[in-house]
Amino acid sequence: MRKTEVAVLGATGMIGQRFIQLLEKHPYFEISSLHASERSEGKKLGDVLKLKDYVFRSETLDMVIEQIDPKRISKTCEMAFSGLPSDIAKDYESSLASAGVPVFSNAASHRMRTDVPVLIPEVNAPHLDIIRTQPTYSDGGFIVTNPNCSATGLAIPLKAIDDEYGLEMVVVTTFQAVSGAGYPGVPSLDILGNVVPYIKNEEEKMEIEILKMLGRLEGGKIVPAEFAMLANCARVPVVDGHLESVTMTLREEPTLEELRRCLSGFRADPQRLRLPIAPRVPIIVRSEENRPQPLMDVNAGQPERARGMAVTVGRLRKTGRFYKMFILSHNTIRGGAGGSVSNAELAHSKRLLK
Amino acid sequence: MRKTEVAVLGATGMIGQRFIQLLEKHPYFEISSLHASERSEGKKLGDVLKLKDYVFRSETLDMVIEQIDPKRISKTCEMAFSGLPSDIAKDYESSLASAGVPVFSNAASHRMRTDVPVLIPEVNAPHLDIIRTQPTYSDGGFIVTNPNCSATGLAIPLKAIDDEYGLEMVVVTTFQAVSGAGYPGVPSLDILGNVVPYIKNEEEKMEIEILKMLGRLEGGKIVPAEFAMLANCARVPVVDGHLESVTMTLREEPTLEELRRCLSGFRADPQRLRLPIAPRVPIIVRSEENRPQPLMDVNAGQPERARGMAVTVGRLRKTGRFYKMFILSHNTIRGGAGGSVSNAELAHSKRLLK
Amino acid sequence: MRKTEVAVLGATGMIGQRFIQLLEKHPYFEISSLHASERSEGKKLGDVLKLKDYVFRSETLDMVIEQIDPKRISKTCEMAFSGLPSDIAKDYESSLASAGVPVFSNAASHRMRTDVPVLIPEVNAPHLDIIRTQPTYSDGGFIVTNPNCSATGLAIPLKAIDDEYGLEMVVVTTFQAVSGAGYPGVPSLDILGNVVPYIKNEEEKMEIEILKMLGRLEGGKIVPAEFAMLANCARVPVVDGHLESVTMTLREEPTLEELRRCLSGFRADPQRLRLPIAPRVPIIVRSEENRPQPLMDVNAGQPERARGMAVTVGRLRKTGRFYKMFILSHNTIRGGAGGSVSNAELAHSKRLLK
Amino acid sequence: MRKTEVAVLGATGMIGQRFIQLLEKHPYFEISSLHASERSEGKKLGDVLKLKDYVFRSETLDMVIEQIDPKRISKTCEMAFSGLPSDIAKDYESSLASAGVPVFSNAASHRMRTDVPVLIPEVNAPHLDIIRTQPTYSDGGFIVTNPNCSATGLAIPLKAIDDEYGLEMVVVTTFQAVSGAGYPGVPSLDILGNVVPYIKNEEEKMEIEILKMLGRLEGGKIVPAEFAMLANCARVPVVDGHLESVTMTLREEPTLEELRRCLSGFRADPQRLRLPIAPRVPIIVRSEENRPQPLMDVNAGQPERARGMAVTVGRLRKTGRFYKMFILSHNTIRGGAGGSVSNAELAHSKRLLK
Repeated sequence: MRKTEVAVLGATGMIGQRFIQLLEKHPYFEISSLHASERSEGKKLGDVLKLKDYVFRSETLDMVIEQIDPKRISKTCEMAFSGLPSDIAKDYESSLASAGVPVFSNAASHRMRTDVPVLIPEVNAPHLDIIRTQPTYSDGGFIVTNPNCSATGLAIPLKAIDDEYGLEMVVVTTFQAVSGAGYPGVPSLDILGNVVPYIKNEEEKMEIEILKMLGRLEGGKIVPAEFAMLANCARVPVVDGHLESVTMTLREEPTLEELRRCLSGFRADPQRLRLPIAPRVPIIVRSEENRPQPLMDVNAGQPERARGMAVTVGRLRKTGRFYKMFILSHNTIRGGAGGSVSNAELAHSKRLLK
Repeated sequence: MRKTEVAVLGATGMIGQRFIQLLEKHPYFEISSLHASERSEGKKLGDVLKLKDYVFRSETLDMVIEQIDPKRISKTCEMAFSGLPSDIAKDYESSLASAGVPVFSNAASHRMRTDVPVLIPEVNAPHLDIIRTQPTYSDGGFIVTNPNCSATGLAIPLKAIDDEYGLEMVVVTTFQAVSGAGYPGVPSLDILGNVVPYIKNEEEKMEIEILKMLGRLEGGKIVPAEFAMLANCARVPVVDGHLESVTMTLREEPTLEELRRCLSGFRADPQRLRLPIAPRVPIIVRSEENRPQPLMDVNAGQPERARGMAVTVGRLRKTGRFYKMFILSHNTIRGGAGGSVSNAELAHSKRLLK
Repeated sequence: MRKTEVAVLGATGMIGQRFIQLLEKHPYFEISSLHASERSEGKKLGDVLKLKDYVFRSETLDMVIEQIDPKRISKTCEMAFSGLPSDIAKDYESSLASAGVPVFSNAASHRMRTDVPVLIPEVNAPHLDIIRTQPTYSDGGFIVTNPNCSATGLAIPLKAIDDEYGLEMVVVTTFQAVSGAGYPGVPSLDILGNVVPYIKNEEEKMEIEILKMLGRLEGGKIVPAEFAMLANCARVPVVDGHLESVTMTLREEPTLEELRRCLSGFRADPQRLRLPIAPRVPIIVRSEENRPQPLMDVNAGQPERARGMAVTVGRLRKTGRFYKMFILSHNTIRGGAGGSVSNAELAHSKRLLK
Repeated sequence: MRKTEVAVLGATGMIGQRFIQLLEKHPYFEISSLHASERSEGKKLGDVLKLKDYVFRSETLDMVIEQIDPKRISKTCEMAFSGLPSDIAKDYESSLASAGVPVFSNAASHRMRTDVPVLIPEVNAPHLDIIRTQPTYSDGGFIVTNPNCSATGLAIPLKAIDDEYGLEMVVVTTFQAVSGAGYPGVPSLDILGNVVPYIKNEEEKMEIEILKMLGRLEGGKIVPAEFAMLANCARVPVVDGHLESVTMTLREEPTLEELRRCLSGFRADPQRLRLPIAPRVPIIVRSEENRPQPLMDVNAGQPERARGMAVTVGRLRKTGRFYKMFILSHNTIRGGAGGSVSNAELAHSKRLLK
């Protein structure tokens, strides 16, 4: 099968480099070019390496970074993955869509548009349809976003629970890894031996995106879910892996064993379609008393290709009507580049790519 | 004024050494002897130093550690502070009380007894009265405990809020420092670059102790408070200072400004009595967008003597009927040794000590 | 080929579990049983998991840990790998050798015996011969040790340099990872945001073992090398990977380019014999200005099976007659379990195993 | 006594704020104005707080930051302390000196000028005299620099040893704290759980500055010392406090006890002159087997005013002709702002200030 030629935008950043990692051996997509801001033009990927836990192929390390010229990209690539910072993502992504290029973006810039899906194939695959209402769609261009890293890990188990038992209230507190802030990101002086209980706009994004994703499609529009959704976000001295503490009330009152089975048995479109990056088991429920932990569970996901794509849930507890759990997901894979690769795989399977 | 001669139990541990720090220049109390398990008998404090951020006087460093012999202690000391581990605290503390010694303890062993107060002078000073129902009280011996370190920092702002607006539901997630586990405590291999979402019995203690402390005294008995109290506890790679994320609903609906004033204006018995270790302002409300932080706020508290005794609250927010805030307190001072010193000061002011 | 049945001693510790990791798919050796102290008898490996960065097969996790009974082991196993703590290793390893079992040990207990090699196949393969002088050798039992973790990473580049240019003086300062102290090992309170410039006996071991390994075999005895060898050892808050700063003078005065080629071109017996765990390139010389780094280079080594077995050298500099470099190696793989597996592979290739 | 009015340059940075901390209650100097780059003009110190372990007075927090206008500063201030980054320090400091202002600088820009002393009053007080050869001196303006943070902690014990026993060779490896890189400085992604064995130009600065400071004044010029000086520099995940591992050979061969007495008995001009910030004991020699450690010894120095100004030496060892020791000093106090304050105090005592 001929592979789709893709451009990676933001190739000097954490998310951009996770895209490159995930695309190095992808069965559908092939990296055609790497792009970043002018400052990095002409440098090789090997000169601006940010990932410390992955070894790129030498030919990938030798790829030269180009400027972001939407017109030129539209001629040489069939699709784009964007790991651009939000402030510059907005215009570039719009231009690419206008030029007929499907864009799968990790940036927040377009997430709140009514015609742009905030997509997790395991959660709201039908929302992908609203791209048809984008003005550029008729020419083949459109924008699909993945949610914020902290919202992704939460949305998947919440979807499983909401479908079965109906969410009433969700209170979440996050323990977010520093890689979520990109590079250079968080100064070491601020986080060594410390916790910073503030991440700009993060709580708002989490609350809104969760409700949008768990909303229903009505007449081509997304009607947000209506349960009480309360987020508290903090940064911790962890490299990769967002841990989240969740306390909930539900409309029904399952036993813990029922809840456990509901989570571990959850399967969705990516599993049924056997999409390449989809984990066979999207929610791994652990029974140890002290899991999930970032160092132990961040790379959960089978097969090998889906490493970092599973969400791990543990410490399921029930106190009166309240349910409690901890969840963990890889913030730059499941909650970043892997999320958009998954979105592109879904679009590919639905024949929405040229 | 002659000072009360006190014994410090657990002098080789974190809490025991915080007791010694706080008592080195105390106006009411004077350290008479240091005690720990047999293993440390005969060693000098300087040989078993655990605190890294405090420099003891050289004469204190030269004090020799003795075994814990309740009978002997009852002859040479008038009072005891206990920083013993819970498993061995139970019997020693009971023996001391039986021998007529008032014991102010940080251990959990006796906290659930109906005749033992879990005391924070700012929160439930009247509960101190129930010591009169202890069988040893007539001979001058009794046990007063301070709550778990994670419960202390939370109880003080909750008390201020409950009094004014009535608590309905409190959901808390903790970010607990490693010093809370004592020494050697948490292995570095478990916590470097990691978060462990489990601390044995901690959530249970937090929930029960908070409700007991905010309960009311009826006919000499404590009737626990009845709001929904949900705790989620995790360990983070921070040395000192427990941060807590709190989401609440109240019976009334104050504005954020009212809530802020309620917290920052809160004063209680220790402030009115001008007890030595009491912070002038027990709850410091910060308006910066990213406070409180362990590294910046752990030692909050004025005057100098009350360093580490104030609780810092920040990021007050309101979403619908829900209120959110982050709180921080020093887990081995306010939530440990300082708590019991404060309890002893209250008892002293009420003339309950010999 | 039938695989040799091996026992792993110390299966509850860091090194023991690295042995199990490396042996899960080994072409020569097969784990027959896991052993540890009485306390862990009957537990499954999954109950005492220490490694956070490796996922064992489920059948391995279900293996039940047995006591260490040398007689029984001698009946059911053909060979043993020992990751025991030094204090208890001595007698058990002697008993196993007496019972006819070849023992490949990471413990320090027997390293200083004149008839026991401290072996790194890349450095001193001929030293293996001295096992013939062990009293138990005639019955098939013997002990081979791998050096201390901090000595291993240093010995390999020093061997390459000494052979070509002759070492005169080596001054080394180590930055050692906490996994080197085993589990629970270093308390987090001691190392979070700190450096501890002391590791018991480490400097002595490093100096003596390096000189023994670089010594020559004369009449069946090892005559230690005679250059000046000075070690300074410190613990840093890093999980895996010992970094070492080396300053040297040599008998000859190569250019930096010559030195670089000498190191990167170094090959030895394990490479020539294509032993399974041997890295194709045992010394990787990096030219970036800021390498090697623990997070980036700890797992160096190709092919996949040799991950963590290569030593990375970087920042080669020359000031007057002095040469400087930084080196990095995986302390529990190259400097621990992998070292002994490599020793066993060499013994296997020399037909010294039954 | 009227205090000298001083300007603090670089008030938004780590070093600048350490200057402010040390000057808040200084007996000779009084902060007249705070200065930083245009970007921060008009902000209050409280808005750009970097120090996490010091609480400024509220009136200090309210001081408004001004631009750096050398002419204006020369009219309103009598002296300047500069914590500017090296790239912009050069011109500003020259302009200030030309405008008649004595400048005490932490920046590297002018350190290599033959007419500018790199000064530590304990080490090379006589070098201060060379300011008389600066072209601006006749008008009252001149520049005095303190050395690099890593050179300072080393120079003081080396001075004591060189005077008594004559240095032949010094090999040093540093473990440098992240605060040495200023703010934002080292990205957390680069240093969490890692060591970076490279700090730009640091080794060169260390080697050259040490030799310049330990050089002798001949005919108004400094002739550098001539022993072999080899530096290896690395960054570790520590907030404050540079630890250094030192291996030396000397011209004489003292016993360890003699060396210890030489270090702990060392006194110099600042001690004899009782300068305010001078520690009574400039070199503290510890006998514990595991000291100095950053967390425990970074703030060494008596009296209170001299906290962070003492250098701690420990683990004195001798192997053959080689001497080994670890040293620790506070990199932004002794090795930064405190160094320049000490220089200004010396100049003040020698009546070199207007």
